[in-house]
Amino acid sequence: MSGELRVLPVEGMPEVRAGDAVGELIAARVDLEGGDVVVVSQKVVSKAEGMVRRLAEVEPSERAIELGDRLGKEAELVELVLSESREVLREERVLITETHHGFVCANAGIDTSNLPEDGTVCLLPRDPDSSARRIRAELVEAGRDRRWGSADNSGEGPATPTAGPSVAVVIADSFGRAWRLGQAEVAIGCAGLQPLDDWRGRKDAGGRELSATVIAVADQVAAAADLVRVKDSGVPAAVVRGLGHYVTAEDGPGAVALRRPPSEDLFR
Amino acid sequence: MSGELRVLPVEGMPEVRAGDAVGELIAARVDLEGGDVVVVSQKVVSKAEGMVRRLAEVEPSERAIELGDRLGKEAELVELVLSESREVLREERVLITETHHGFVCANAGIDTSNLPEDGTVCLLPRDPDSSARRIRAELVEAGRDRRWGSADNSGEGPATPTAGPSVAVVIADSFGRAWRLGQAEVAIGCAGLQPLDDWRGRKDAGGRELSATVIAVADQVAAAADLVRVKDSGVPAAVVRGLGHYVTAEDGPGAVALRRPPSEDLFR
Repeated sequence: MSGELRVLPVEGMPEVRAGDAVGELIAARVDLEGGDVVVVSQKVVSKAEGMVRRLAEVEPSERAIELGDRLGKEAELVELVLSESREVLREERVLITETHHGFVCANAGIDTSNLPEDGTVCLLPRDPDSSARRIRAELVEAGRDRRWGSADNSGEGPATPTAGPSVAVVIADSFGRAWRLGQAEVAIGCAGLQPLDDWRGRKDAGGRELSATVIAVADQVAAAADLVRVKDSGVPAAVVRGLGHYVTAEDGPGAVALRRPPSEDLFR
Repeated sequence: MSGELRVLPVEGMPEVRAGDAVGELIAARVDLEGGDVVVVSQKVVSKAEGMVRRLAEVEPSERAIELGDRLGKEAELVELVLSESREVLREERVLITETHHGFVCANAGIDTSNLPEDGTVCLLPRDPDSSARRIRAELVEAGRDRRWGSADNSGEGPATPTAGPSVAVVIADSFGRAWRLGQAEVAIGCAGLQPLDDWRGRKDAGGRELSATVIAVADQVAAAADLVRVKDSGVPAAVVRGLGHYVTAEDGPGAVALRRPPSEDLFR
């Protein structure tokens, strides 16, 4: 059907270890087409980048010990949360901070699930937009001789190349939200995807000017991908097909474009 | 591919008028299958329920006039926002309120785009979960003799009926978010869909207990559907196929289950 969107889980990914090339692992398991958006779970990106920490090796500060006592959390975990954050926004019941990247989330995005060893936790990637660019480059490199490949297509693919050689990458993580229960996936990094679609100044179907519609495309892509992953936490990536109009030749601004500047944020 | 998700735009919907049965209009344009989730834009539901208002017929209060002056908004619009709200949370630059339903959003969800007449605005449905239940009943009724139909299937469909006779309905609207730029669609109403998937107490892939993972399924479904609608604001509905495991025989708790109780909300 025209205008259809498909979300395909990437099956059979191995346990990712520090130093692994996530883009190569994905490219070996899916037939990508030009215009595809590959959505990768933050967890595997962090693992590949060696962002797993052993709690026993963390030296908690006095503040972390006091806060941990009050919140019923391990002081070592609290210490990591504080060291990954530029500001603590709430410390009642839960710890909501702004990370050094500028993300507002619980526990600075540090997570203890789906890790191979007890006593370890996983931090967010240092620079998720940069991670997305690297994974995108790996996908492009791996796809160079495939049917969605670039200019030096060797001719082994179909006679008519697909619309564009580009694929995009989103790195997704689940964040809690103000006002609403449950977590939704958002894009913490992206490359080759237009992160926001700004309709301000454009017209609606009836010719009236749209006043304040800016669509968080990258976050909605992350949310869509999560729907094929939740059934099995062993599926750390998905391909979203049908959004070629948002895929760009350049890496673009990244998910940093989705962070609301603190000065414009009324809820802190 | 197993585990694949598809999002199909519902094409060819007419301009919806007060009194129209939205479920019938959709059922006439798509071949639904058991387990499908039909996502309908709030705007068409509101139109069908006669929630369009003429600003010239609104009598603004003194407070609305003062607030309108300060925010550069029409006093009549502000009056409607106030009358649709139980509490004003922010009135700097924009008007963020909690609606009578309990949604926190800009302008109480009142919207001026995609309406047939100038000088009109559109309010949210009075009870979006009830709207979703009604649309679901219309879809079930319209599908009674179709292949995903119920017990009195006349045999015209395939020999083996699909897994379940149920379809679900989500009513979606785009809300701004704290901390992040851009709007994302959320579920303001739903019927027949498990709105939250609570993994607390369940195990991760490595056997470790997941501590705080509750997935906002209905909101992510709304976001996924928006990705096929943004290209053309004339597409007010989409079908999300592949989530039958979240579709229930009962109408269920509705999207009210996604509202964070004010007492548990740290950001107000």
